[in-house]
Amino acid sequence: METRIPTAIVGVTGYEGVNVARLLAEHPRFQVIEVTARATAGVPLGVALPALAGSSVADLPIRESVADAALVFLAVPHGPAATLAAEYRRAGRRVIDISADFRLSDPALYARWYNHDHPAPELLPGAVYGLSEWHRPAIRQSDLIANPGCFPTAALLALLPAVAAQLVEPDLIVDAKTGVSGAGRSPSRRVHFSETSDSVTAYGVNGHRHLPEIEMELGNMAESGQAPRVTFIPHLVPMNRGILATCYATLRAGITETEVRAAYQERYQGEPFITLLDQPPETGWVRGSNRCLIMLRVDAARQRLIVVSAIDNLMKGGAGQAVQNANLMYDLPETMGLTQAGVWP
Amino acid sequence: METRIPTAIVGVTGYEGVNVARLLAEHPRFQVIEVTARATAGVPLGVALPALAGSSVADLPIRESVADAALVFLAVPHGPAATLAAEYRRAGRRVIDISADFRLSDPALYARWYNHDHPAPELLPGAVYGLSEWHRPAIRQSDLIANPGCFPTAALLALLPAVAAQLVEPDLIVDAKTGVSGAGRSPSRRVHFSETSDSVTAYGVNGHRHLPEIEMELGNMAESGQAPRVTFIPHLVPMNRGILATCYATLRAGITETEVRAAYQERYQGEPFITLLDQPPETGWVRGSNRCLIMLRVDAARQRLIVVSAIDNLMKGGAGQAVQNANLMYDLPETMGLTQAGVWP
Amino acid sequence: METRIPTAIVGVTGYEGVNVARLLAEHPRFQVIEVTARATAGVPLGVALPALAGSSVADLPIRESVADAALVFLAVPHGPAATLAAEYRRAGRRVIDISADFRLSDPALYARWYNHDHPAPELLPGAVYGLSEWHRPAIRQSDLIANPGCFPTAALLALLPAVAAQLVEPDLIVDAKTGVSGAGRSPSRRVHFSETSDSVTAYGVNGHRHLPEIEMELGNMAESGQAPRVTFIPHLVPMNRGILATCYATLRAGITETEVRAAYQERYQGEPFITLLDQPPETGWVRGSNRCLIMLRVDAARQRLIVVSAIDNLMKGGAGQAVQNANLMYDLPETMGLTQAGVWP
Amino acid sequence: METRIPTAIVGVTGYEGVNVARLLAEHPRFQVIEVTARATAGVPLGVALPALAGSSVADLPIRESVADAALVFLAVPHGPAATLAAEYRRAGRRVIDISADFRLSDPALYARWYNHDHPAPELLPGAVYGLSEWHRPAIRQSDLIANPGCFPTAALLALLPAVAAQLVEPDLIVDAKTGVSGAGRSPSRRVHFSETSDSVTAYGVNGHRHLPEIEMELGNMAESGQAPRVTFIPHLVPMNRGILATCYATLRAGITETEVRAAYQERYQGEPFITLLDQPPETGWVRGSNRCLIMLRVDAARQRLIVVSAIDNLMKGGAGQAVQNANLMYDLPETMGLTQAGVWP
Repeated sequence: METRIPTAIVGVTGYEGVNVARLLAEHPRFQVIEVTARATAGVPLGVALPALAGSSVADLPIRESVADAALVFLAVPHGPAATLAAEYRRAGRRVIDISADFRLSDPALYARWYNHDHPAPELLPGAVYGLSEWHRPAIRQSDLIANPGCFPTAALLALLPAVAAQLVEPDLIVDAKTGVSGAGRSPSRRVHFSETSDSVTAYGVNGHRHLPEIEMELGNMAESGQAPRVTFIPHLVPMNRGILATCYATLRAGITETEVRAAYQERYQGEPFITLLDQPPETGWVRGSNRCLIMLRVDAARQRLIVVSAIDNLMKGGAGQAVQNANLMYDLPETMGLTQAGVWP
Repeated sequence: METRIPTAIVGVTGYEGVNVARLLAEHPRFQVIEVTARATAGVPLGVALPALAGSSVADLPIRESVADAALVFLAVPHGPAATLAAEYRRAGRRVIDISADFRLSDPALYARWYNHDHPAPELLPGAVYGLSEWHRPAIRQSDLIANPGCFPTAALLALLPAVAAQLVEPDLIVDAKTGVSGAGRSPSRRVHFSETSDSVTAYGVNGHRHLPEIEMELGNMAESGQAPRVTFIPHLVPMNRGILATCYATLRAGITETEVRAAYQERYQGEPFITLLDQPPETGWVRGSNRCLIMLRVDAARQRLIVVSAIDNLMKGGAGQAVQNANLMYDLPETMGLTQAGVWP
Repeated sequence: METRIPTAIVGVTGYEGVNVARLLAEHPRFQVIEVTARATAGVPLGVALPALAGSSVADLPIRESVADAALVFLAVPHGPAATLAAEYRRAGRRVIDISADFRLSDPALYARWYNHDHPAPELLPGAVYGLSEWHRPAIRQSDLIANPGCFPTAALLALLPAVAAQLVEPDLIVDAKTGVSGAGRSPSRRVHFSETSDSVTAYGVNGHRHLPEIEMELGNMAESGQAPRVTFIPHLVPMNRGILATCYATLRAGITETEVRAAYQERYQGEPFITLLDQPPETGWVRGSNRCLIMLRVDAARQRLIVVSAIDNLMKGGAGQAVQNANLMYDLPETMGLTQAGVWP
Repeated sequence: METRIPTAIVGVTGYEGVNVARLLAEHPRFQVIEVTARATAGVPLGVALPALAGSSVADLPIRESVADAALVFLAVPHGPAATLAAEYRRAGRRVIDISADFRLSDPALYARWYNHDHPAPELLPGAVYGLSEWHRPAIRQSDLIANPGCFPTAALLALLPAVAAQLVEPDLIVDAKTGVSGAGRSPSRRVHFSETSDSVTAYGVNGHRHLPEIEMELGNMAESGQAPRVTFIPHLVPMNRGILATCYATLRAGITETEVRAAYQERYQGEPFITLLDQPPETGWVRGSNRCLIMLRVDAARQRLIVVSAIDNLMKGGAGQAVQNANLMYDLPETMGLTQAGVWP
C-alpha cells in the first residue's frame, strides 16, 4: 500500500469543509489527520456533523490549528483565508484555498470587490487558478491553488470553448441559478427556509463578486483586445445544491452551428468530468457528483448561442474540484475519489 | 344590492379553474352558478377540491356543460377551448379564454406552433389580447378575451415600456423561471416531485409556444420596422407558484438611466397591480396576489438594461388577470375581488 | 358605513404580525392605524414588507409604540408581550396576545416552562384562552385574549370532542408536523434552508412548551380526576406553512365507531371553520385559510382512535384565529375577513 | 485482482434500480453486466438516466432480459417480481428481490394485502427476510432475499431491541414520515410537485401494506403469545428521500431508562450502519448513505418509550440494504461499496 498524504481541512464545519471531509473519508491517498473549526474545537467530527457519523473521519477531534499536514484544504471565508494560507506556505504546506482570496491576480481589483486590502499579495503571483480542465499543467506544478468560485466554474466551463475559439462577440450574458448552500452556513433571513422556499429572486444585481473572476478568466482566453464584458445576474432558487448557468452570446458573423458543436466536442472530448448532452441538463443529475453537464443551442435566425451548464456548487463548484486539483498536484489519477454518480433522485 | 352576473367556470378542477373559483367565491358581483369538469361530474366542488371546502362555492355540483351563465371563464386546454368558445359565443355568452387559443391573431402562426389548424379562426379578429394594463379600452368592449400566457404577462409587463418608448435595441433576451404549477395538473415525470425538487433545468430551448406571443405583442408596440426578436428560455424551478422574468436588453445609444426610469414610472404610475421596486422582487411576495413587481437596473458601462419582474403565474399570470379582465368587461372597479396581499411567508 | 375600530399591530414584521396585517388590510371593520416594530421604525410597511406593497396598509409608517388604538394585536415574543399587555390594558386597550404569555393560567407552571417569572401575573385571571370554537362566550366578554399556540390549536380541535365526551382513555399521543414558519422569523441554523429542506426531524423531544398548554386545556374539558397525559412530539417538515397533528388515543371499552363519529359531528356541526373530511387532510388545502380539516379513523381491532387535523399555523394557528377572536370580541360576524379559501395549489 | 461477480439489475430505470446501479458502479466485486427496463431497451444506461452519465455503467445498453448474470437485483413491482424470481431461480441465479413479493411468509396474508394470489408460493419457504442486522446467518446461506420495505426497515430497527428484550407492552404506534421517492417513479397526482410541495398529509390510514410486514417481523422476535399489534400511519412529506419513524411504546412496569438504553447499546454495538444518537436524527444526515440513526427517549412520568429512527428510503430502506445483503451472500465485507457518508447539506 502506498503512503498516504497527511492532509488537513481548515474550516471543516462549513459546507465546503464538510464536503471535502466527506470526499476524503473515502479517498485512497489523502489521509485526513487534522480538521479545524472555530466554535467546536474538541468535539469529534462525527458528533459535530452527524452526517459524517460512522465514516472513517468521524472520530477525528476538531482542533484549533494545523500541525502536521502536508496539504491543507482551506475552507474559511476570504480575508482570514489569505492570512492562513501565508502561514501554511511559510511552513511548507501545500494549500488549496476554496475561498476567493487568490482568484483575482490583481490586488487592486481584489481590494475594490472585497472592500479590504489583500492580506497576502506576495502570494498572488504564485497562485494558480484551479479550473482543472483549463489549467492542468500549472495546477500540477503549484503549491497554492485558488479554487474557482461556484458561479465562475459553471459559467467558464460553458463559455470558454466559444470564447477561446473566437466564435462569439465579446458581449456575454450569464443568467445563473444557484441553490441556497452557495450562500454558506451562516444564518440570515436570506437563507431562512420560509423566505427562500417556494420563491425565486435575483440578487447581486449591482455587481456580484464572481463577475470580475469570470471576466478575468474569459479575458485570459480571449483574442487580445477583445476582453469580454459580462452581464452576470445570479438567482437564488429554492433548492439545496446545484448551479445552472444559462449563458447567452451573439455568434460572430458567419459562424455556423457545426463549427460551434465541433469546438465544444474537440475541447471536451475525453474530459472525465464533462458531458455534452443533447437535452437540457438538470442540476439534480449532478447532485453529489463532480460532473459538469453542458448543452448547446444555436438559434441561427437570431444569431444566438445559448449554452447551459449544470454543476453541484459544492462539488465541481467547490469541494469536488478542490479534490480534483489535489489529485493533479500529487500526480494521482485525476478522478481518484471522485467517480461516484449523482445521488438521484 | 346590485344584481350579480351569472358566471360559469369550465374546467374547474385544473389549476387555473380552481383559482378562478377561489377568487369568485369572494367576488361581490360575479356569481358562480355553474362549474364543469370532465372526470368529476356530479361531485360537489368542495369535495372534488378540498381546498374549496367551506367556501361559498363548495356546494356547487360539478356539471358537464354550461346552461345559463352570461360569462364563461374557459380553463381547458387549447384546441377544445376554441371549440367551446365558439359554442358559447353563438349562445351569446361572453368568454374569457385562459387557454392559448385566441392569443395569436394569425391562424397560420397558431397552426405552426400548436400543430393543428385553429378550430375557430372566424373568432380571431374579434378576440382581444387581455394584457389588462395595455389594452384596457379594447377589453372593455370585448366579448372574447384571450387571457395572456403566464410567461408573456411577466415578460411583456417588464419589457413593453422600454420597447414602446424606443429605448432599446430590438434584440431581447428573456430568461424566465417558473414554478411547477405552470405545467398544469396532468401527471408526468416532468412534474414528479422527486425529479423536480432540489433541481433546476431549462426547457423548451428549441422554441416555447409563448415565444410568438411575446414577439407578436412587442411587435405591436414597437416602432414600425423594428419588430423585436426575442430569445426566450424558460426554466423550471422547484417551487409551486410564481414566475420571475429576467429580461436583458441593449440600450440604444445615448439613452440614460434617468430616461429609462422615467419611462417606467410614467407608464406604470397609478397602475393598481404594478409596483416598481428598488430591490430585486421575490416571487414569494406575490404568492396568491394579482400583483406584478418590477425592478430596473441599468449597467451603463455595458449599455445594458436589465428588467426583472415577478408575478404569481396562477394570478396575474392566469386566473387573477382573468378576473381583472372580467371586471373591465363589466365596468366594475378593476381591482374588485383582487386586492388581497400575497400570502407570505 | 359603520365606524371602524382603530387597531394596532405590535411586532408587525414577524410572521404573525405580517399576517394579521394582511388580513386586516381587507377587513371591513378593523382599521389598522398603527403598526410597530423594533428595527424598522420610520419605514412604510409596504417597503419593509414588500408582500404588503399595494395593499391598503402599505403606506402606514412603522412606529415605535401605540398611541390611539382601541384594540391591539400583540405579536412579539413571550416575556415582552406580557409587559406590553399590562401597559395596554392600563390604557384601556383591548388586547389579543399571540404570544404564549397568557395561555397557562398558573404562573408557577409558566415559570417552569418559560424559565422566568411571569411579568404580569395579575392579568392571568382575566385572560381568556382563545380557542374560538370552545370558548366563545368568554371570548366575547374578554378584554385580554391568550391566542392559542399553533400546535395546541391543531391538537385540541382534534382531541377535545373525544375527551369531552369521555370516549378515550387519558393516555394520548400527539405526533405533530409543522412547517418552518412556526419557528418564527429569527435566523438560525434550525431554519436554514440547506439544513431544513429535503429533511425531516423530531424536536423538543424532552418537552415542548406547547405540552402544558395542551394538557391544561384537555384537563379542563375532561371528566374530573381523569386529566389526560399527553406525549407530544413535534416534527419539523420542509414546508413553509401548515401543521398536521396525528393524534392517537385508546378507545374506552365498549365505545363504537358510530359513537365517535356522532360526537365529532354533533360538536362541529355548523362550525364555520371546521370541516370533517372522509379522507386524510393535506395542509396544502388550508394554506392561507382559517380552516381546520379533521379526519377520524377508528381501528376497532386495536381499539384505537386516530384523529388527524390540518391547519395553517399562521392562520387558524395564529393570526387567523386572532382575527376570529377579535370578531367575537366586537360582536362582528365571526367569519368577517376570514372567508377566503386556501391558496391551492 | 479477484473475480467479479456477474450481476444484473432488472427494472433499472425505477428509483430502486437506478440506485442499485449507482452503488454497483463503484463496487469492487459486483460487476453489472446486464440491466433491463421495459420502455427503454436499446438505449445506453447513461442516456436513459443522465444522472449515471460518465459512470462505469453508463455505456451498458438497456436490455429486455437477463442472460448471464449469477446475481439478480430485482427492482420491479410486486407480482411480476415473483414471476421473474421464479424464472431466475430455475436458471440457478441468486436473487435479491426489492419488491414486496417474498416478505410475507404466509401466502394467504399476501393475497389479502396485495389483492392477488402469490405467483410463486413454492419459493416462500426458502426466502429470507433481508433485514441485515437481524438475519445475518440466514442471509449468508440464502439464494433468495426478500429485501425489506422502507417503512419496515425504519420501524423494525427502531423497535426490535425493545420488543426482543421484552421491555414494552405489545401495543405499538409507528408514525412514519416518508419522502416522495418512496412512491416510485410512476407519475400521479399524489406525486405531482404542486400537490405535494409545501404540504404534509397522512395516507394509507385504513391499512398500509407495510403493516403486516412490521407485525410479522415483530411477532417473530416477541415473547411467545405476545404478538405486538401495531398502529402504523405513514405520512407524505415534501422531501425527496428519507424516512423518519417515530415509534411510541408503553414501558412494561418496572422497566427503567437504564435498562432500555443498555438493551439498545448492547444490540447495536459494533453495527457498522447503525448509530445511536443523543439528539433527534434528521433524515438529511443520511441522504445517500446506508446508515440508520436512532434516538431513544424515555418519559418515565408517562411510562413511555419513544424511539426515532432515520434512514434514506432508497439506501438502507432499499437499494443500499440490497447491496449490503449481496455482500453477506457472497461473504464479502458487509460494508463494501457502502461506506460513503451522507450527501449533506
